[in-house]
Amino acid sequence: MFCEDRFDRVTAVVSSLSIYLVTRQCGDPTMYENYWQRMGERTTVVISGWQSMSYFSDVKNPCWFLEPEFAKQVVRLHNVVGNAVTNGRQIVVGTGSSQLFLAALYALAPKDGSEPMSVVSAAPYYSVTSLLTNKSRWLLMVSLQSYPSMTDCLKSGLYKWAGDARRFSKEGPYIELVTSPNNPDGFVRHSMVNRTGGILVHDLAYYWPQYTPISSPADHDLTLFTVSKATGHAGTRIGWALVKDPEVAKKMIKFIELNTIGVSRDSQLRAAKILEVMTNTSENVGRIGSYESFFWISYHLMAERWQLLRAAVNRSRVFSLPDFTPGFCHFLNQDSQPQPAFAWLKCEDDRVEDCESFLRGYKMLTRGGRHFGVGPKYVRISMVDRDNNFNLFVKRLSVIQS
Amino acid sequence: MFCEDRFDRVTAVVSSLSIYLVTRQCGDPTMYENYWQRMGERTTVVISGWQSMSYFSDVKNPCWFLEPEFAKQVVRLHNVVGNAVTNGRQIVVGTGSSQLFLAALYALAPKDGSEPMSVVSAAPYYSVTSLLTNKSRWLLMVSLQSYPSMTDCLKSGLYKWAGDARRFSKEGPYIELVTSPNNPDGFVRHSMVNRTGGILVHDLAYYWPQYTPISSPADHDLTLFTVSKATGHAGTRIGWALVKDPEVAKKMIKFIELNTIGVSRDSQLRAAKILEVMTNTSENVGRIGSYESFFWISYHLMAERWQLLRAAVNRSRVFSLPDFTPGFCHFLNQDSQPQPAFAWLKCEDDRVEDCESFLRGYKMLTRGGRHFGVGPKYVRISMVDRDNNFNLFVKRLSVIQS
Repeated sequence: MFCEDRFDRVTAVVSSLSIYLVTRQCGDPTMYENYWQRMGERTTVVISGWQSMSYFSDVKNPCWFLEPEFAKQVVRLHNVVGNAVTNGRQIVVGTGSSQLFLAALYALAPKDGSEPMSVVSAAPYYSVTSLLTNKSRWLLMVSLQSYPSMTDCLKSGLYKWAGDARRFSKEGPYIELVTSPNNPDGFVRHSMVNRTGGILVHDLAYYWPQYTPISSPADHDLTLFTVSKATGHAGTRIGWALVKDPEVAKKMIKFIELNTIGVSRDSQLRAAKILEVMTNTSENVGRIGSYESFFWISYHLMAERWQLLRAAVNRSRVFSLPDFTPGFCHFLNQDSQPQPAFAWLKCEDDRVEDCESFLRGYKMLTRGGRHFGVGPKYVRISMVDRDNNFNLFVKRLSVIQS
Repeated sequence: MFCEDRFDRVTAVVSSLSIYLVTRQCGDPTMYENYWQRMGERTTVVISGWQSMSYFSDVKNPCWFLEPEFAKQVVRLHNVVGNAVTNGRQIVVGTGSSQLFLAALYALAPKDGSEPMSVVSAAPYYSVTSLLTNKSRWLLMVSLQSYPSMTDCLKSGLYKWAGDARRFSKEGPYIELVTSPNNPDGFVRHSMVNRTGGILVHDLAYYWPQYTPISSPADHDLTLFTVSKATGHAGTRIGWALVKDPEVAKKMIKFIELNTIGVSRDSQLRAAKILEVMTNTSENVGRIGSYESFFWISYHLMAERWQLLRAAVNRSRVFSLPDFTPGFCHFLNQDSQPQPAFAWLKCEDDRVEDCESFLRGYKMLTRGGRHFGVGPKYVRISMVDRDNNFNLFVKRLSVIQS
């Protein structure tokens, strides 16, 4: 997900180390900038100095910091895309879905438990790293965020990271994070702990038509979405949760009050405008197609990129990519291939122990499997980078031969 | 600080309870809306759909999510107002100063301590409450945020609320929060724990010329400011910290990465524009005055409000207000009276045990001293509400006689 623009700078400062031509693989969804430029002023927001000054967005809503216009556009978008049930759900807005993930842990873990509640997710699981330079201007790969570090950073007495869901065998209640399609490997996921007593949190950041077939509206207890993956506007830091149980929603709202007293109203207003245009241009896409629809255009762009990547991987014979099963997408009204925002590349050459280091030798910086709870044969590649960077990456990958 | 607009709604829904005429005393700084309306389009921001999409604001800065323009305007403003040293400080931006307070606790508490580090502040200390209605539509006073609840909500193993700084006697290191001028009582504060070994966090949210004389630039290790109290733009959720030790700043940045992966870029851009206009109109205020300066105008408005409140309190003979010592304000270049954003009202009538309940009987909703760690003889009154509400409050207070 990370280190896009940062890496522009990093490549500049380390040019003396002769690695300034490395390609970036850090995952800001900057690919979408082109689309929004083409849409011109339709998504421009104008905010006067005296507007939205109060803390409060909507005093009628239990989530008093939720902008009504943002809530309205979230519902419209889900209805048009068909990827989530919104009826009977409380929408909780957050400063990105990260804050909502923490809010969910706070809401779901008992306050008076004898020990912290276990939090699990099946490996490979969510992790964000970035490139930094140290004082000697050497490149360092630094972990910015991951499920384990987010869960354990404050040594909370309420919850505790308990590792890979597939290996989890401890008795008692637990929280399982289900990321579907999964980051980093792109597979559709279901609960992996083979028993009852678990509370599920569904992170559906990538459940949008450009990444995966929309098979049916998600109908879970607690679902997380984020603007950054849906539209590319990572800098707004806006995410939302759809929460079935009002008591759970209330506790999530309480967490956000304690954490940041609400969520930027400016970014909510901007996100509302962007979602509105996405929805307006995407109505009836399945019946008539649309050369204006964000999802339609992004779907075809991702398809093209995956074809290019698979062709390069096939030529090299050193690597492999996951095989996905196509499915019917009710939004596009056709069969479609999963084409995740990340490619989970495996190095099949027995002589290569560490794929991340191997690719670095070819001036490609990727993120190794260890960051995601699995072995070093794997790396994660961003598929949503700007055109130049993606094309350079594919070109470099193509020349590697076994 | 809270419940301004919310209360509009609350008064509507509870009208059948005959308390719809109660005045609001919850503290959104909405008084400043008038000023920003008068400034017209000078603080309008326009953000196109393709701008600020990346996570990253400034890859050269250790605080990579800090907008350079916002950082620039923070430095300019402090230089013109003279309320804080910015040289040799890392600016860390946060989603309000609440997030920065939590980031400071994370940064300052040892990760491997044998027990959680104590966090103290001298009573009366920071607390935010709000009015809610329950299912029967009765008004409830609910605590939204306070130093104790923020510190302890996750039962962190790193730090723990240890109460009133004046009574703190535990051996070992501790973190002391020094809020100056203090919320709720308005007094200038210094460290209250009478020994070494403490780490100080200065919350200077109210150290601006409209509230208190600017005696000298604050020169502390870790200082918190927030846009909401400086300009009235609470809805932007933007605060900033000035941090002397780069290692502490780095840990605070790390916390914000783990918590929300940065801070809304849109709100930072908006805040930058607002601070720019504040600074532009406030240069040379001390020498030539300015009928455009936010601080000049707000200072005179606060002076007028404090005169009205003191006159009402003197007439009633039931209450008392703190007496403040005037000081020389280097920004205004004149002696000035402290005139805090909150009035800390004491009920002097021996027959009244609970001032909050007493005032509610006169249709005035205030916040009782217990929320701030002291007795029920005190209540806090917002001095930064809209004109109508403030005037109605003063009128009602005036009619109470002993």
